[in-house]
Amino acid sequence: MLLGDSITEFGFTSGGFAARLAEAYVRKMDVINRGFGGYNTDLIIPVFEQCFAPQQDEPNAPKVRILVIWFGANDASLPHTPQHVPLERYKANLTALVQAVRSPASPRYSPETCVILMTPPPVQHERWAHGYAAMKGVAVQAPDWDFDMAKMYAEGVVEVGKSEGVPVVDVWTKMWEAAGKDMDKVGEFLFDGLHLNAKGYELVYHALIETIAEKKPEYHYDNLQTVFMNFTDLYADFANHRKLSKKRSAYEKGSLPDPKAGL
Amino acid sequence: MLLGDSITEFGFTSGGFAARLAEAYVRKMDVINRGFGGYNTDLIIPVFEQCFAPQQDEPNAPKVRILVIWFGANDASLPHTPQHVPLERYKANLTALVQAVRSPASPRYSPETCVILMTPPPVQHERWAHGYAAMKGVAVQAPDWDFDMAKMYAEGVVEVGKSEGVPVVDVWTKMWEAAGKDMDKVGEFLFDGLHLNAKGYELVYHALIETIAEKKPEYHYDNLQTVFMNFTDLYADFANHRKLSKKRSAYEKGSLPDPKAGL
Repeated sequence: MLLGDSITEFGFTSGGFAARLAEAYVRKMDVINRGFGGYNTDLIIPVFEQCFAPQQDEPNAPKVRILVIWFGANDASLPHTPQHVPLERYKANLTALVQAVRSPASPRYSPETCVILMTPPPVQHERWAHGYAAMKGVAVQAPDWDFDMAKMYAEGVVEVGKSEGVPVVDVWTKMWEAAGKDMDKVGEFLFDGLHLNAKGYELVYHALIETIAEKKPEYHYDNLQTVFMNFTDLYADFANHRKLSKKRSAYEKGSLPDPKAGL
Repeated sequence: MLLGDSITEFGFTSGGFAARLAEAYVRKMDVINRGFGGYNTDLIIPVFEQCFAPQQDEPNAPKVRILVIWFGANDASLPHTPQHVPLERYKANLTALVQAVRSPASPRYSPETCVILMTPPPVQHERWAHGYAAMKGVAVQAPDWDFDMAKMYAEGVVEVGKSEGVPVVDVWTKMWEAAGKDMDKVGEFLFDGLHLNAKGYELVYHALIETIAEKKPEYHYDNLQTVFMNFTDLYADFANHRKLSKKRSAYEKGSLPDPKAGL
């Protein structure tokens, strides 16, 4: 489950990180996009509560194995914008989301779920302001972001990751370094100064997969089996194909069929 | 839910029809890929029974609103291959899949589900045979398909659609006509003679969306609302954003929040 703002919502566009994940995990894990353009960590909390079922209410709901939480692009907008969330509240909101899944006292406690935080990318605030004005046919206004603010919010995510003990994909730092710490070159990863293009998503996808490989290798796509057997195995014993084609857990190679596998 | 063989399984590759659908329907309907490489209509039936929950057993399971059934590429392979399914059995299997969802007597009866059949694409059987031999480093063998056989199976799907009263996206005819009825030009839509490239998936995506627009317009993405409200509407009445951000049905514009909406 990918929980985020517009940068997540656009994740199924061509070359997007949701599409890349769905291709890599096909037949093993479904990718559920819960990206909401314009949302910040204030708005997401009541929505998240409706997207992530408490296990006691919905014992048969598919389990979320990886929860990617990626906010900040809106939270870090400057205080004059309605979407701004002060840094301490942003960190508290992220902490609440993490604890909703990881705290044994929470109704949404889910020990099988690997929570991964991601930092927001650097923003080309001048480019965005000019593009936005051109799109709306209005005069260019003061930018809604600035460089230092976005950086502070990215650092805030890293702090929450440390204090909560969950992995962080530091998109901000990876993109900034890949751009040679040059704001113009950050533009190679963004299509409008704020949202990612295919090259930006490629960087994010690889960084996320690396984090999974390192922190939760048992959920890396290469370490999962397909939920339903390959056709060659079914044809090897066709008389028994009905029995062999029982759903099994993607997470236990060679396991017996498991009717609660993550489908 | 996209039920099919490898051509569906590869649907999240760059430009694939699953990715295009997921982009178009984001925040309105999830796209669930149930494509299984090498599967034919014999193999899919027991698997489908485990992917499509009987409503009485799982009253809270998300409802499948559109079920795309796309088989034939393997079924139509020549009788010497293990995956071949004789035409009459292929048609009977497709009919059984349709009736599993549409017959009131079926445990999987689901009147909200729009079933759409798709015909298999034309196959460049010589190109596939040569590419396969090169990939495996073996001598070129007799093709596993031929033109007339694939065409007959495509016609079989159209017949099932008529007799069952469900829409058919005739991929075979659309691709054949788009190629000017020239087998070499069919290659513009296929990357290896059998599987679709981005141009092939683009054709399929648009044909499928046209069919939805014509036969089930209430499920066209333009006629759905987002399950969770847009952020501008939430900010217009921020004091009440918790109440306003209740899940609602994507299918009833302006509806009250519905806790069983198709998420």
